Amino acid sequence: MIRTPYLLFLGDAPDQLSAKVAQGIADWNPDSVVGQYRMEGCNADVGVPDLSLQDAYDKGARTLVVGVANRGGMIAETWLKALAEAMEIGFDLASGLHNLLRDEDVLKATSARSGATLHDVRVPSVAYPIANGAKRTGKRCLAIGTDCSVGKMYTGLAMDGEMKKRGMKSTFRPTGQTGILITGKGVPLDAVVADFMAGAVEWLTPDNEPDHWDHIEGQGSLYHVSFSGVTMALIHGGQPDALILAHEPTRTHMRGLPDYGLPSLEALRDMALPIARIANPCAAIAGVSINTKALGDDEAARLCQEVEARMGLPTVDPFRHGAGRLVDALDAL
Amino acid sequence: MIRTPYLLFLGDAPDQLSAKVAQGIADWNPDSVVGQYRMEGCNADVGVPDLSLQDAYDKGARTLVVGVANRGGMIAETWLKALAEAMEIGFDLASGLHNLLRDEDVLKATSARSGATLHDVRVPSVAYPIANGAKRTGKRCLAIGTDCSVGKMYTGLAMDGEMKKRGMKSTFRPTGQTGILITGKGVPLDAVVADFMAGAVEWLTPDNEPDHWDHIEGQGSLYHVSFSGVTMALIHGGQPDALILAHEPTRTHMRGLPDYGLPSLEALRDMALPIARIANPCAAIAGVSINTKALGDDEAARLCQEVEARMGLPTVDPFRHGAGRLVDALDAL
Repeated sequence: MIRTPYLLFLGDAPDQLSAKVAQGIADWNPDSVVGQYRMEGCNADVGVPDLSLQDAYDKGARTLVVGVANRGGMIAETWLKALAEAMEIGFDLASGLHNLLRDEDVLKATSARSGATLHDVRVPSVAYPIANGAKRTGKRCLAIGTDCSVGKMYTGLAMDGEMKKRGMKSTFRPTGQTGILITGKGVPLDAVVADFMAGAVEWLTPDNEPDHWDHIEGQGSLYHVSFSGVTMALIHGGQPDALILAHEPTRTHMRGLPDYGLPSLEALRDMALPIARIANPCAAIAGVSINTKALGDDEAARLCQEVEARMGLPTVDPFRHGAGRLVDALDAL
Repeated sequence: MIRTPYLLFLGDAPDQLSAKVAQGIADWNPDSVVGQYRMEGCNADVGVPDLSLQDAYDKGARTLVVGVANRGGMIAETWLKALAEAMEIGFDLASGLHNLLRDEDVLKATSARSGATLHDVRVPSVAYPIANGAKRTGKRCLAIGTDCSVGKMYTGLAMDGEMKKRGMKSTFRPTGQTGILITGKGVPLDAVVADFMAGAVEWLTPDNEPDHWDHIEGQGSLYHVSFSGVTMALIHGGQPDALILAHEPTRTHMRGLPDYGLPSLEALRDMALPIARIANPCAAIAGVSINTKALGDDEAARLCQEVEARMGLPTVDPFRHGAGRLVDALDAL
């Protein structure tokens, strides 16, 4: 568990996109954010107050979260001074970058001296069990995509937020670095050893009250040959009651695989449902989530209507239109 | 690459079953085996000459292979003296057990002093890439099971052996500990980190001559919720041209999952083929392999005939009846 609230470290982010992780945290868990810390040359701004390390600490911030990725996804030399200073003040550090906080000598030494904790959220910290397949109480929803990076995390977060607004029992269950930094806990599934993937998902979504919903963060795609095994483990470890089909309509080929076209939503549905019913015979497709970021308002509305008619399933962009109709669909199951 | 030939270490194996790994090596790669080394109290015998460490070394053996698993799959205290002595004589050590040779102080020290190599084949020794999905030359066959442990490895080994007997170009590609110890190399797929599973399989089965067959060792089952992600990565990383359906007819539930029944061969076929065609549009189901170990001769023959008529696919127990008809089916693709 990572201590909150956070100060978001944007370093010398060259542009807004490189601060995607910080933006995700600020968008989805604003209550956990005290402010942002920007160095000279920073060209990103996630819309929260600029604070010095000491001011942020005095306002209650307890973890400095590296919310920026430079080219290569590495911790930059230029950040080390500020990161070490933060620990001297009393902060813990958290990062989802490829190279680890604990592998930087100066950070390791400072952490040992100051007692600060280094959270490398890309590395599993738990010895996950092998999945046992036992039926768990409570309800679970999982978004599965026609491709990677089509909005599965945003779909889960939006549905969780809508449920909480309605006073329903709901938890978002992160399986990737950004999600873990948003909520402070989770499973870095793509870094888990093969034999324990499904067990890690079982661990992440334990027994719960009968009317409680877990929104499990999706990963990869059954149709993405690089990562489909991770998706499979999510479906079988998660034993979801409800699946949401997630899609990005302007993608011309599978992400990173120029020779692979995207499946239709119908093909994804037909492949996913029998797979899901192995672990949960009551699994159902509950709705469709379209990432309409690249479309205008009219075009987005028209596309959702067309897909809804074609698939016979409530279809929205939960980020643009809200997740209300998807939550209605889960409620009706 | 593990140096051959081997001396098989049976230790104080309490029974024949506990020497399963040694038996697999003796059965499938007899040319690699000089003999067996048994300690007092050993109740297993894999049918090769009993040799002292020195005699085996003098006959050419270069690696002492731990071919026994005691309860818990751990290296036993009682073995350490002999294992260390072997290294002093000049042997390397190889093991697929859960605790590692390199984690035993006395073995590590002896290896450092003697220059012997410790092969812990359960641990990946390669930084596998992320799968790129590119079409590779050469042909590939993968056995997929209605359950785990139904004979997928034996099927691949038998087909590889039959092809070699016919003078065809063929390689068995191990993905598990026993297979790796049989051939001296491979990928311990269940120990690979999630993001790299499919990439490890691509690495294992590289471009080859157009008429060369890789027989990729199967793992898990699409229907086994604990390990289905591993099976998925094998199908998408392996991009097989031919799938063999593997089945054990006396199994009453999925291995280790008492609440999960086995799928029919038809259900497995219908689920696997669309999944396989994502990575290889020409993928076909080529035959059925039945593990008839628990049946009498007549019963085994009758069952294969019945399945063959039902599925319209050549159906044999390759260990009992030979893999000739499965190889014919691949040849005809």
